[in-house]
Amino acid sequence: MDASFDLQPVFEPDTIAVIGVSTSNLYNPGYIIFQRNLIIKGYSSRKVFGVNPRGGSIEGIDLHKSLFDIPKNIDLAVLCLKSSDTLPVFKDAIDLGVKGFIVISGGFAETGPEGKAIQDEMARLAIHHGLPLIGPNCVGVYNPSHVNTIIIPNERFVVPKSKGNMAIVSQSGGVLLDQFFCKNYERDIAISKAISLGNKAVLDEVDLLDYFEHDPATDVIGFYLEGFANQRGREFLLKSRETNKTIMLLKGGKSDRGMKAASSHTAAIASNEAVLDGALKQFSIINVNTEQELVAYVKAFSLFAGSNKPFFTNAFNGNIAIITVSGGHGVLSTDIAEKYHLDLVDFTDTEKEEIRAVLNPVVKGIAGLGNPIDLTGSCNDDDVVHVLEVLMKNPRVELVLLLILPYPPMLSMSLGSRIASVVRLHRKPMITYLPWLAKYEMIKEPLNEANIPVGNSIEEAILMAKAVQMKAMAMKRAKNNKIIDAREVLISDYQEFTRVLDEISKQREKKKRNVISDTDR
Amino acid sequence: MDASFDLQPVFEPDTIAVIGVSTSNLYNPGYIIFQRNLIIKGYSSRKVFGVNPRGGSIEGIDLHKSLFDIPKNIDLAVLCLKSSDTLPVFKDAIDLGVKGFIVISGGFAETGPEGKAIQDEMARLAIHHGLPLIGPNCVGVYNPSHVNTIIIPNERFVVPKSKGNMAIVSQSGGVLLDQFFCKNYERDIAISKAISLGNKAVLDEVDLLDYFEHDPATDVIGFYLEGFANQRGREFLLKSRETNKTIMLLKGGKSDRGMKAASSHTAAIASNEAVLDGALKQFSIINVNTEQELVAYVKAFSLFAGSNKPFFTNAFNGNIAIITVSGGHGVLSTDIAEKYHLDLVDFTDTEKEEIRAVLNPVVKGIAGLGNPIDLTGSCNDDDVVHVLEVLMKNPRVELVLLLILPYPPMLSMSLGSRIASVVRLHRKPMITYLPWLAKYEMIKEPLNEANIPVGNSIEEAILMAKAVQMKAMAMKRAKNNKIIDAREVLISDYQEFTRVLDEISKQREKKKRNVISDTDR
Repeated sequence: MDASFDLQPVFEPDTIAVIGVSTSNLYNPGYIIFQRNLIIKGYSSRKVFGVNPRGGSIEGIDLHKSLFDIPKNIDLAVLCLKSSDTLPVFKDAIDLGVKGFIVISGGFAETGPEGKAIQDEMARLAIHHGLPLIGPNCVGVYNPSHVNTIIIPNERFVVPKSKGNMAIVSQSGGVLLDQFFCKNYERDIAISKAISLGNKAVLDEVDLLDYFEHDPATDVIGFYLEGFANQRGREFLLKSRETNKTIMLLKGGKSDRGMKAASSHTAAIASNEAVLDGALKQFSIINVNTEQELVAYVKAFSLFAGSNKPFFTNAFNGNIAIITVSGGHGVLSTDIAEKYHLDLVDFTDTEKEEIRAVLNPVVKGIAGLGNPIDLTGSCNDDDVVHVLEVLMKNPRVELVLLLILPYPPMLSMSLGSRIASVVRLHRKPMITYLPWLAKYEMIKEPLNEANIPVGNSIEEAILMAKAVQMKAMAMKRAKNNKIIDAREVLISDYQEFTRVLDEISKQREKKKRNVISDTDR
Repeated sequence: MDASFDLQPVFEPDTIAVIGVSTSNLYNPGYIIFQRNLIIKGYSSRKVFGVNPRGGSIEGIDLHKSLFDIPKNIDLAVLCLKSSDTLPVFKDAIDLGVKGFIVISGGFAETGPEGKAIQDEMARLAIHHGLPLIGPNCVGVYNPSHVNTIIIPNERFVVPKSKGNMAIVSQSGGVLLDQFFCKNYERDIAISKAISLGNKAVLDEVDLLDYFEHDPATDVIGFYLEGFANQRGREFLLKSRETNKTIMLLKGGKSDRGMKAASSHTAAIASNEAVLDGALKQFSIINVNTEQELVAYVKAFSLFAGSNKPFFTNAFNGNIAIITVSGGHGVLSTDIAEKYHLDLVDFTDTEKEEIRAVLNPVVKGIAGLGNPIDLTGSCNDDDVVHVLEVLMKNPRVELVLLLILPYPPMLSMSLGSRIASVVRLHRKPMITYLPWLAKYEMIKEPLNEANIPVGNSIEEAILMAKAVQMKAMAMKRAKNNKIIDAREVLISDYQEFTRVLDEISKQREKKKRNVISDTDR
């Protein structure tokens, strides 16, 4: 859709009508949505309206028998009706001047031609009137203190922490609730807004990208998509390139079950996916390959991204220094850093002496002064803090990775707080690893407060460092591109991207045919 | 060492002497170990003895001024002395008939020739007298209700859950405490015994493999090694092949920091590591590549392995069926299953009808009956349980992966308990994914109790399924090998393994030289 929709009524409605509210079934989507928005809007019968042809009331708030009985103008209508009952109500709502729609119910295009016809007619009307419509067949929209149409009973819903700077756009309600809400909750990641796109009858990923591009509360936009809406891949890529915000894409449906090929075939595909990864990079889209990458990147970006946190800028080479108190962690982190193409700075003898000079007498004699720097189990808070200060001042070190094992007895529970002070002073990106047990919370909390990402495994922490580097590179690339004709770059990039996609699908087709002929033999 | 040591005094000592116990420094290793073993042995002054030349007492138990003052025979002596003070005490202990040693202190071979001389003399004496010696420079041994010499202050120590069937052997104390103890604790994984090897002056990975091979409490042995003890790699591999227990190896130090080669070089190495992986497989060693694999495999093996749990046997083809209630999870799990070369069974029309027949009327019309089977958010407990029963009875399905999202309102908190009943009846391996929030514990706990692994991400669950397949394949391979000359197979395998190792190190050397000459240019 080329028309730009006003999404304010969807994300920040003053008045909400929930249509199709049961008074007896606690699992009825309409009931769940009505009741929850009453809480959000403060039980105001002038802000949230429920419609049930038989009337009744919920928690003291009367329902209306029809849309026409509602005494106020409605910003957002949330439709929870059978698909066959939806169209007449939808038309009434347009006539009444409703400004935005979320259609929760299923039974539309995903079920066959009959449902598709209803959906198409809804879409036609919405577009004709320039009205935003989310869904159908979705779990809806979440904006803390404004609206929440996510149809999970209260007791099961994981309330996201607010106020974050990450918006979530998901083609799957389950992935939204789980890989984003649940996992973000576990990691103390707060969000700004979230939306489940459902069938994308009208609004799709491009519209939401547009909206969040201009949303001051959002610095990072996380997408889960299984495919682009019809003819919209191109716009999505081009718009992604033009935004200053950080865009992540977890793409579902990369595999091809039909292709049961030998491992050599798989290797070919894997290498094509590396090319695809490179193509997405050209559009400044962070390609997310795994759930582990997702949580690591989300954490790093949501803490670091944003115009008021220019920590990134210089970390594009991926030159890191690692501090550890366990030799084994030093070894494992070296292995993982190499896997992700991060470089451990080789310290000169002078630099090593600078580090040695700040250590306590016992550790001075036994510390490993390579990179990783191994302070050993005999170190204390001062050793960690002083070495960190040395590294923060060293211009060759772009990012510090600190593996805080809370086992050495001389490391106190003040350590996190002291580290945070150093980072706030020097403003160089730092990533930490710390086991996430409740007993170590006194170290972790001050790091969270200081926007220092804390991974729950060495690999997660290193992926966070990788995220910083990727963002720094994207920013550098964007800056450099300004001096040449941006439009031309975009077009040639897009052609390259299309070429890669074509090639992959051709190869897959070919392999499918091979598999079939193998089977036939 | 070819001599076989009796490790009973180390792991199950009746009497323990801790030598070098401070009465004033709460962080002193001797103090920590003495005090904690008092708790374990029930504050019996006839079981745990502390030695401090100045005497004193701790929590009401008097210390002894010398080893010679101890009124009982000592099974295990734990030495926490300066390296320079260690040898005379060690000799006294041998004279007094002590049966086993753990030397906690550092300051030996890892610090230089002087320390190495002391260590070598200790080793010589221990071997001469046939006495087991752990360390020096280690955190020691953990055996619940018998002995715990791990030198972490109580408040920081994560007490592992017992009684498990997994033994841990680690070259790094930090990795033992963190990647094993902490992460196992988070995942409700109980352990049997654990040991940190330190400098391996006498006892090394081969001795411990020997010991745990004969330990009835242990079914699974997890190793973290950075290298094999001198000339011991061969024995380790051959012994691994001969055991019926499950052996996992997380190898630290795979990377080569010197080799800052281009990505094409890296790809070459990666492919060699795949060959190495294959070589380890020949020896029935599970090669663990990442922390995520470690926790997934540990969980799967510790729940499934063991002679009384023959769940594995038939899952060697990796033919799985996936049940989901979210389309997005179905898509993501398909992608990940392909990545790990697991095959989703293609259901015939008859099989699909069998599945459809057991669904409730609403779900019957909308469920996705491919593989993954998508029961949708409208399903209830009966749908999940009945489909699971159908799959358990289907001989083409070797393993069921159940993605339990607790969001659909009709899924009750009884679901985990009902699923566990089905699995106990049919005894086919099942792996689940379920978000690990406290509010969903009522589903998770009965699964844990029924030995059904619960992953905390889709990928973790799929890695658990992969673990089942790897184990089933190893068992099948071992069975087949019995009909040919096992010794011959072992030798040719070993030659192949050596060849691969040689090739990798040659290639690395070559690349190092290339890098140097590149730099020189």
